[in-house]
Amino acid sequence: MPRIAVDAMGTDAAPLPEVEGAIRAARERVAEILLVGPEDALKAELARRGAQRLPIEVVHASETVTMDDSAAKAFRRKRDSSMQVAARLVRAGRADGFVSAGNTGAVMATAKLVLGALEGVDRPALAAAFPTSKGKAAVLVDVGANVDCKPQHLEQFAVMGEIYYRVIFGVERPRVGLLSIGSEDHKGNDLTRETFRLLKESPLRFAGNVEGRDLYNGRVEVVVCDGFTGNVALKISEGLIEAVYSLLTESLSSTLRSQVGYLLSKKAFKHFKRRVDYTEYGGAPLLGVRGVCLIAHGSSNDNAIKNAVRVAAEFVRGQVNDKIERELARAVKA
Amino acid sequence: MPRIAVDAMGTDAAPLPEVEGAIRAARERVAEILLVGPEDALKAELARRGAQRLPIEVVHASETVTMDDSAAKAFRRKRDSSMQVAARLVRAGRADGFVSAGNTGAVMATAKLVLGALEGVDRPALAAAFPTSKGKAAVLVDVGANVDCKPQHLEQFAVMGEIYYRVIFGVERPRVGLLSIGSEDHKGNDLTRETFRLLKESPLRFAGNVEGRDLYNGRVEVVVCDGFTGNVALKISEGLIEAVYSLLTESLSSTLRSQVGYLLSKKAFKHFKRRVDYTEYGGAPLLGVRGVCLIAHGSSNDNAIKNAVRVAAEFVRGQVNDKIERELARAVKA
Repeated sequence: MPRIAVDAMGTDAAPLPEVEGAIRAARERVAEILLVGPEDALKAELARRGAQRLPIEVVHASETVTMDDSAAKAFRRKRDSSMQVAARLVRAGRADGFVSAGNTGAVMATAKLVLGALEGVDRPALAAAFPTSKGKAAVLVDVGANVDCKPQHLEQFAVMGEIYYRVIFGVERPRVGLLSIGSEDHKGNDLTRETFRLLKESPLRFAGNVEGRDLYNGRVEVVVCDGFTGNVALKISEGLIEAVYSLLTESLSSTLRSQVGYLLSKKAFKHFKRRVDYTEYGGAPLLGVRGVCLIAHGSSNDNAIKNAVRVAAEFVRGQVNDKIERELARAVKA
Repeated sequence: MPRIAVDAMGTDAAPLPEVEGAIRAARERVAEILLVGPEDALKAELARRGAQRLPIEVVHASETVTMDDSAAKAFRRKRDSSMQVAARLVRAGRADGFVSAGNTGAVMATAKLVLGALEGVDRPALAAAFPTSKGKAAVLVDVGANVDCKPQHLEQFAVMGEIYYRVIFGVERPRVGLLSIGSEDHKGNDLTRETFRLLKESPLRFAGNVEGRDLYNGRVEVVVCDGFTGNVALKISEGLIEAVYSLLTESLSSTLRSQVGYLLSKKAFKHFKRRVDYTEYGGAPLLGVRGVCLIAHGSSNDNAIKNAVRVAAEFVRGQVNDKIERELARAVKA
């Protein structure tokens, strides 16, 4: 069974979501867990939940990275942070991968510095899965690891994102689109026009340029962009979903008739919300580092943590990193 | 009263939305209209609607730009297109501004080539207004006129966007944010970090970096970015709204109970949809050209066309272009 280290101090409500998520993952035989954080507190929480006989080992870490720590400071000044100890367990081979819901910038920097990049990877990239109106998921990569990119970086993101989709969502030849401002071949900026040529010559199933609206309509499975654009895309989506909820709730409660409708619709709303809940997808993998690194949202609950552990374990079982090295070597030769 | 030329052949259902929008605008004394397109057909439509005594003059144009025409081809090969004739009416001083719901790329190219840029403007920029959860509007600029930008271009977008917001939404000192991937000052890519320094030294009410999620929460009134990022942002929002509707409708009709709820909620939904309907904001102005150019969505109905005419007229009355030239000169001196 894969061994996954879980940073117990990452979520806004740490360590409870991590403790409970680890317990659920261990109970469901998803993975063996190394739970990293303040030993006494974590052991007490586990004992309180009757989890002593589950495959969960506590590994002590005395420090915690906060949202106010810069990535560089978190790495250099907090050598014994739960995040960094978790990454070092991977480097030492004691764990196959790690999950953290902490400060995203700090997790990325820590993973890159502690684990290093795979052969052929210039820049590890953060990938995010989200639902489409077709019911299936789509993956966007990079969503924030690299703000200034060159065409060859985007090509590597495409290869890595395609493997991620293939392994986690079980689709044999996912289509890859390049995020641009029109679907015609020549549309885009300097970066995307050059990347277009590279992807067209690659062994990937390249579907050409896609537009922002194609993210959610299932036209392609994997969408590639630089980390600045991808991060903006992700956060706009979060913001818009929030705004839609707020406006919709207000509209729905504006008349007595629709108040009744609102109450009756409540169950459907819940169902809907779960479908657009990207915590179901188990966090964002940092693709291209030596080892597996899954970054969960700071607001993750136990279910989201368990799902991140599950995806990390599937990365290990699916040998994602071997595939990345092999297929990048092939893509560059091509 | 401002005189606005309306390209009658731009919408998907042309010329009916244009004819009816022009009639509404003329009836409500928003502007005098020059309706540009095939003379006989337009006169027949106007007569059928009893609009002969309204201040609407038909100006003949024999050609129509389609969605398949490239911007360059539309400009060079269709000199007598309704879009180009409308722009020339502005250059000749017969109209103060023009409205087109045609091929956005072609309208932008035509406006730039026929009208030219204002003093101090290196690159005209497309601005889009949309609703926030606070009920007020926000403006994003540039949403697609310039895919590769330099920091000084973004500074000009900020000055122009601020004037647009001030004049159209009547806010004296709108806050300006720079779209980036974190709210801290140093966050962003090469382009935004340099733009940050320029905006910080400008006379604008600069609120620093904003994230994608701030577009819809009303944290600032004006958000500045390059045209690639802005176009992606706009189209992602459109796509997500569509996906939310589709998922929500599906969820709502999945049980009998919620079917009842859905019917009862219908009125509220309609109200909600109108609030997120950006056609209410009257299209996107191309800021920085000599004259006023409002670009409406291809799916515009008569209400959207009327609103675009209204906004174009307000641009004229509010002397937006004089303000742009004056304030850009001041910003550069500063």
